[in-house]
Amino acid sequence: MELFAVPDLPEVQPGDDLGALIRERVDLRDDDVVCVASTVVSKAEGRQADLDDFPAGPRATELAARLGEIAGEEKDPRFAQAVLEESTEIIMEAPFLLTESRFGHVGVNAGIDRSNVPDADLLLLPTRPTRSAERIRSEIEADNVVVTDTCGRPFRHGQRGVAIGWAGISASRDWRGETDRDGRELGVTVQNVVDELAAAANLVAGEGAGGTPVVVVRGFEFGDHAGSDNHFRDVESDFVRQALREWEYEG
Amino acid sequence: MELFAVPDLPEVQPGDDLGALIRERVDLRDDDVVCVASTVVSKAEGRQADLDDFPAGPRATELAARLGEIAGEEKDPRFAQAVLEESTEIIMEAPFLLTESRFGHVGVNAGIDRSNVPDADLLLLPTRPTRSAERIRSEIEADNVVVTDTCGRPFRHGQRGVAIGWAGISASRDWRGETDRDGRELGVTVQNVVDELAAAANLVAGEGAGGTPVVVVRGFEFGDHAGSDNHFRDVESDFVRQALREWEYEG
Repeated sequence: MELFAVPDLPEVQPGDDLGALIRERVDLRDDDVVCVASTVVSKAEGRQADLDDFPAGPRATELAARLGEIAGEEKDPRFAQAVLEESTEIIMEAPFLLTESRFGHVGVNAGIDRSNVPDADLLLLPTRPTRSAERIRSEIEADNVVVTDTCGRPFRHGQRGVAIGWAGISASRDWRGETDRDGRELGVTVQNVVDELAAAANLVAGEGAGGTPVVVVRGFEFGDHAGSDNHFRDVESDFVRQALREWEYEG
Repeated sequence: MELFAVPDLPEVQPGDDLGALIRERVDLRDDDVVCVASTVVSKAEGRQADLDDFPAGPRATELAARLGEIAGEEKDPRFAQAVLEESTEIIMEAPFLLTESRFGHVGVNAGIDRSNVPDADLLLLPTRPTRSAERIRSEIEADNVVVTDTCGRPFRHGQRGVAIGWAGISASRDWRGETDRDGRELGVTVQNVVDELAAAANLVAGEGAGGTPVVVVRGFEFGDHAGSDNHFRDVESDFVRQALREWEYEG
């Protein structure tokens, strides 16, 4: 398996034909997985925004006041308003905003980016990243496209790449019913391959000025396994989420 | 960046010289990252165990009874005893055992594997995976070694590869203070590269009978960034863990 960055992508602007920008810089092969950072997808889709686009309502004002008190520095209630508008549920409101985005992704501040946005205050995540992946896939005639993001997680330090949208490939491969060398059923049952592809791509993509937001994974073999598009947990099976809903920060 | 599996590794036995088994099957180059599945590290280190090695005390008996009631099928209290002995904290005891292992990893059932263990009931994780990584690194004269495992996580469906030990390479690279094309400070500050390497390796490693537990990552560039060996979160900064400690399953 081989990974390489698509070279020389220009700064992407609203309305740019992202598919064309990729297509003219790389010769794709069968079964390639094209991993595209959500930043450039958002930029092409015009998801830049300014804080003034989000006049703060009472809930955002209250959230920002509490977060500001905890942080010991003022927090902009317009930013809290943007997070509220991008989310379907506030899972945790202090000491930071952990929410479910409109497409099911659980993350801090609804994944809104305050860096990497020339001429705007904010970059929102794509509205429907799986639809974005499908569109890019058809534009570049790739077999598989994954839209990636980076975020933190419980228990483990630092951020890593994750998939927020995908097309062509299944999100997971399912080892259930398969056995080990000794004939025992496998302990690992469902492997989330699109998250692993996003993590792998992030090793090559880098960040910032030298960043290369599109990475091709060549030679990944899904193999002869059942696939599934379960990617975000159901609330019913997510005990951590249930615990967080009930928890109250008291720091 | 390129990933390939080390071919033809035999079934690893207690006391095997894992370093020699790897070394004679691959020509390593400078800066290669050798990702070794914890299963083979544990096997070589004699971490196979039987349920009879863990006579259940009262706490394990109580835990197994509760888990059995929830699952609607009997649970072996000796298994709960094994989990207790491998853990420093039970973070959540129902509807499954989420614990911190003795080396800081938070996972279900202390990462004890019930598949892939010929002639034994259980395979425990290596006692000190970072020490294992250091030893393998010196045995095979590799620049970098990562000991990997697979586990689930909150919010997202399925399992993915993670690092539980590492040597040579830093766990994370730190982008703090670096800026984007527009001169703004980067949103992503700490990238956990060993977890991303483990995830990438898991795409190639596979599971079960056809599994290849050792994968070489060639051409990964850490670059000119500060590194850190923070890998597992401190309890103080882990609000999810705090919430779970206080939460009570009532299903």
